[in-house]
Amino acid sequence: MFISLAMLLIFASARLLAEVFERLSMPGIVGQILAGILIGPSVLGWMRPGVFLSALSELGVMFLLFQVGLEVKSSELMRLGGTALAVAFLGVLVPFFAGWGITLAWGEPQIESIFVGAAMVATSVGITAQVLASKGLLHQRASKVILAAAVIDDVLGLLVLAVVSSVAKGGLNFVELGVTSGLAVGFTFLVARFGTATVRRVMPRVEQQLRAGEAQFSVALVLLFALALLAQYAGVAAIIGAFLAGMALAESVNHRVHDLARGVTELLVPFFLVGIGLHFDLAAFAQGGTVILALVIVAAAMLSKFVGCGLGALKLGLPDAVRIGVGMSPRGEVGMVVAQIGLGLGVIAQSVYGVVVFMSIATTILAPPLLRIAYRDLLRPAAQPEAQEAP
Amino acid sequence: MFISLAMLLIFASARLLAEVFERLSMPGIVGQILAGILIGPSVLGWMRPGVFLSALSELGVMFLLFQVGLEVKSSELMRLGGTALAVAFLGVLVPFFAGWGITLAWGEPQIESIFVGAAMVATSVGITAQVLASKGLLHQRASKVILAAAVIDDVLGLLVLAVVSSVAKGGLNFVELGVTSGLAVGFTFLVARFGTATVRRVMPRVEQQLRAGEAQFSVALVLLFALALLAQYAGVAAIIGAFLAGMALAESVNHRVHDLARGVTELLVPFFLVGIGLHFDLAAFAQGGTVILALVIVAAAMLSKFVGCGLGALKLGLPDAVRIGVGMSPRGEVGMVVAQIGLGLGVIAQSVYGVVVFMSIATTILAPPLLRIAYRDLLRPAAQPEAQEAP
Repeated sequence: MFISLAMLLIFASARLLAEVFERLSMPGIVGQILAGILIGPSVLGWMRPGVFLSALSELGVMFLLFQVGLEVKSSELMRLGGTALAVAFLGVLVPFFAGWGITLAWGEPQIESIFVGAAMVATSVGITAQVLASKGLLHQRASKVILAAAVIDDVLGLLVLAVVSSVAKGGLNFVELGVTSGLAVGFTFLVARFGTATVRRVMPRVEQQLRAGEAQFSVALVLLFALALLAQYAGVAAIIGAFLAGMALAESVNHRVHDLARGVTELLVPFFLVGIGLHFDLAAFAQGGTVILALVIVAAAMLSKFVGCGLGALKLGLPDAVRIGVGMSPRGEVGMVVAQIGLGLGVIAQSVYGVVVFMSIATTILAPPLLRIAYRDLLRPAAQPEAQEAP
Repeated sequence: MFISLAMLLIFASARLLAEVFERLSMPGIVGQILAGILIGPSVLGWMRPGVFLSALSELGVMFLLFQVGLEVKSSELMRLGGTALAVAFLGVLVPFFAGWGITLAWGEPQIESIFVGAAMVATSVGITAQVLASKGLLHQRASKVILAAAVIDDVLGLLVLAVVSSVAKGGLNFVELGVTSGLAVGFTFLVARFGTATVRRVMPRVEQQLRAGEAQFSVALVLLFALALLAQYAGVAAIIGAFLAGMALAESVNHRVHDLARGVTELLVPFFLVGIGLHFDLAAFAQGGTVILALVIVAAAMLSKFVGCGLGALKLGLPDAVRIGVGMSPRGEVGMVVAQIGLGLGVIAQSVYGVVVFMSIATTILAPPLLRIAYRDLLRPAAQPEAQEAP
């Protein structure tokens, strides 16, 4: 297949359905995910996930979080760290036990139930970030808590997955677990805490030295890829590294870097969203019974994150708690990765895999409209996007 | 391999060597190609060409030509059409017979010699376009002739390849050949001639209808992918479609579209350049004798394009003729594609394939410094890049 055909199919269908959805006063992001389901194997069969598309999709979400990071000051995120920690912890515990309990009660084996619980822990911050960024809501307090909590959530999710995988392989190695968690926490904390100051000191010197055009953007991209890579070596997701890179650069780069990064995200983010939809697999629901479990799991996934994260943020007041509870609910690509790992380890059945993928996509589609409702009061005074900053 | 590792390796090595070369007053573009050779299979072996990298590289050169198209008015290109036609025709004939004759004289079989001739016809407009764009020289008369001639050259190259492939497969089908050429010429001419006016009429209406952010850029990308695809169906290269899309949009889009496209090219063009270097294959030169043929072919490739295209442009005066002769000389990825087709048809040996790849890369590395020299007089008055417009 010509690359241009794949690019045209995905990009045009994503923009088209986004447009249709916006006209129906529904989130464009949902339209883009549905575009993926539509052109994917389950409906039209024009496209299926492949190496190139997965890579573009991964790049897309990396650049998305990089761009979100560019708009966020790490000092502000740090200040909300306590709340974010509570949100992340409760947002891990409640969904995990909900997923585990329900699947066990359904009669599935212990290890499969644990994996469903682990997949429920995931948070696809890309989805929420895209909604918030497109509406100019990133600077709201609730949004910042969501971003900080999502970073912590990723580290916690890594630990849950490590524990669960060890159990599946037949034993826990506490030393290994300690090293894993130390590395992940250490990397994330150090970059979040000291990244901004370091870049602020180094960037002017580096920039001065460079003769090439768009020197700041080049340096920014190198930092983006380097931190994404280090994040992966440290065990956390590449997108967390990308987010931290953006945040570290936020106070040192000029507006030109924002514009250039925007060009890349405008091109690539549709690939991320369509990519999620492409993984929708109708065949996995051919068997009777799974549909009901899937619906129960989706309801539990929405409710458990909402309750867990909302409780963690309750001291910010009910409106912010609701925003945070909804914002943390999409599982997106992260939930699917957990399911794939379980499938790879041979500990979950194809039917349970289908349920987790369905849950991941359903929560991802449900979150954007709910987010709009939750943020409704902050959307109205469109002229002052930062007005709600300190209530 | 992590995507972020591949991205970091390629992007950082390309920027680093570009920087080193610029400091040594050599073209950064050559540094980037050498970065590919350096990290490629022949030297360090850190990277090798693969599906994902080839795709990024193809996207990179597509966006490069799209961006170049955005800066060019089709009416101006059309006005230079007569000269461009002469440049393209002589730039096909002279190199073809040079390559054919030399290889035949070297003692290679008839069909292999013809294929070497066909590969010598290729013009990698991406290389020249990148040099001219980065120096702000796209608006010079010689540059416009190069762009127009490169488009015509692609159509002619298609025909040469079609004839050569038919001969290799055992017979010429003149009807098929007529359809092929009619389609290619028709598509290219129609889009070049009527694209701008059509877009100028349609764009404001489409834009008015769209609610999404960055509507112009979205429409531009859809047109880019659509014309790249149609170009491929019409038998010409995707990059020609991308160039035509940019040119059709040039008079209808605002500066924001240029900035956003620039972000994508800043990210992806290094992948195109490094990708060329990655294909360098030292192993193909293990056999004795081939090295000398390779050097002779490189010299003939440079000289024949220089003479052929220069002669075609002689009526513009010697300086412009020299610029055009040099600007048409890089064979880049296009020459390599011809070699791969020959290899695929089983009509050229691995050693001759190596020679053609070497010629493609060598001409690509030689052209940028020569271009700098040829354009030297236009570079000096840096304050007035358009001053030389109408001498």
